[in-house]
Amino acid sequence: MRTIKLTVAYDGTDFVGWQRQENGESIQELIETALSDIENAPVTLHGAGRTDSGVHALAQVASARIASPIPDAQLARALNAHLPPAIRVTRVDTMADDFHARFSAVAKSYEYRIWNGPVLPPFIRLYAWHIPEPLDAAAMREATDAIVGEHDFSAFRGARAVNHTTVRTIRRAAWTTDGPALTFHIGGTGFLRYMVRSLAGTLVEIGRGARPVGDMARLLSAPDRSAAGRTAPPHGLFLVEVEY
Amino acid sequence: MRTIKLTVAYDGTDFVGWQRQENGESIQELIETALSDIENAPVTLHGAGRTDSGVHALAQVASARIASPIPDAQLARALNAHLPPAIRVTRVDTMADDFHARFSAVAKSYEYRIWNGPVLPPFIRLYAWHIPEPLDAAAMREATDAIVGEHDFSAFRGARAVNHTTVRTIRRAAWTTDGPALTFHIGGTGFLRYMVRSLAGTLVEIGRGARPVGDMARLLSAPDRSAAGRTAPPHGLFLVEVEY
Repeated sequence: MRTIKLTVAYDGTDFVGWQRQENGESIQELIETALSDIENAPVTLHGAGRTDSGVHALAQVASARIASPIPDAQLARALNAHLPPAIRVTRVDTMADDFHARFSAVAKSYEYRIWNGPVLPPFIRLYAWHIPEPLDAAAMREATDAIVGEHDFSAFRGARAVNHTTVRTIRRAAWTTDGPALTFHIGGTGFLRYMVRSLAGTLVEIGRGARPVGDMARLLSAPDRSAAGRTAPPHGLFLVEVEY
Repeated sequence: MRTIKLTVAYDGTDFVGWQRQENGESIQELIETALSDIENAPVTLHGAGRTDSGVHALAQVASARIASPIPDAQLARALNAHLPPAIRVTRVDTMADDFHARFSAVAKSYEYRIWNGPVLPPFIRLYAWHIPEPLDAAAMREATDAIVGEHDFSAFRGARAVNHTTVRTIRRAAWTTDGPALTFHIGGTGFLRYMVRSLAGTLVEIGRGARPVGDMARLLSAPDRSAAGRTAPPHGLFLVEVEY
């Protein structure tokens, strides 16, 4: 037996999310099935983390234990032949036996993409949140600076979430712009469920002038879920990298 | 009554093409219906040209005669409110009475997009032709140079096409590259049906080494439809601009 690491890109539009669920096709299930077909035995796939329905990944990571001696590059091609074009295994690497996609991960980064122009181009309609009104970029940047560091992010998580600890360390939080395309980049050692979308939603409310710039720092020092902004829609979110 | 010019971007994936057809939804039909609803009377829409099923447009142009005094920018917003997100009216302009999207057009340009890498990213799977094998870029460029000028393009049209004349003038034919993304740019005074896709298909066969570089010049000087390359798939083709 050996441990393999899969790097996977996917368009989350047509799936119920990464994780197996009763109510529809998940990315995990499709890859597990493809891998089990090739292995000719049941294989369990561990993802670095879940992504919700509609959320995309440029480089999700997953691990599994297999017996097949098929070379890594050939395994990637075989998996892609079994998978729909919306899911692509971009590489396979054989790792040390104790590698685990979730437990070995030390950091993750995400992007949240916004189209801040009057008309959303058809080709990105599934890959960006459309905000037609002008946004105050300076206010959004100022609020974004408050995110970096170690904070209790409990104001920015799913309403029904239960976590042992809601303290996370964010190493980078920044915006880049390319004409009307605004991208929020965030990287850190861990994230709560809905955290990136909730931060993006709050930052957009600040950009719209619907709440003061200081709200971000306030919500991080005195967490109150009901006071944070609305969760931004899933289709603007991309899991960009998992670090080991 | 006044004449309006619509500039339209669309993702052609889910439509039967620009032109009204019995067998499914066309872009023309959807815009005509939206315009007729706003005008509260039947409106006929003339496109600069057809695009086939699966072909995209960054800036298709269409014209119509309407009585409504609604300002141009407001009309664009109203049309978009009636249309699916895969079709966007990017602008409306009131023109001289004799403007006609097809008859007034003096030139058009297209792009044909190829992804020349081992794995096709999920996000462009509907917007580029995937060619995993290496292509000989120098051979493709040399063959592409032969396209510029006035030629009889009858080797590069639909098998059942009937045209009065198959002579067309191409002003620009060139490739640009951005890593594995290869784009064929072509502009000229007119195009036969399937002409860009047939040229792209032939150029790719030259790039693969499946036919000699000189084939392009040969097919343009001694047209023979059966000797040209296979028609490239529709989803790599974009109508980029119509000039007036």
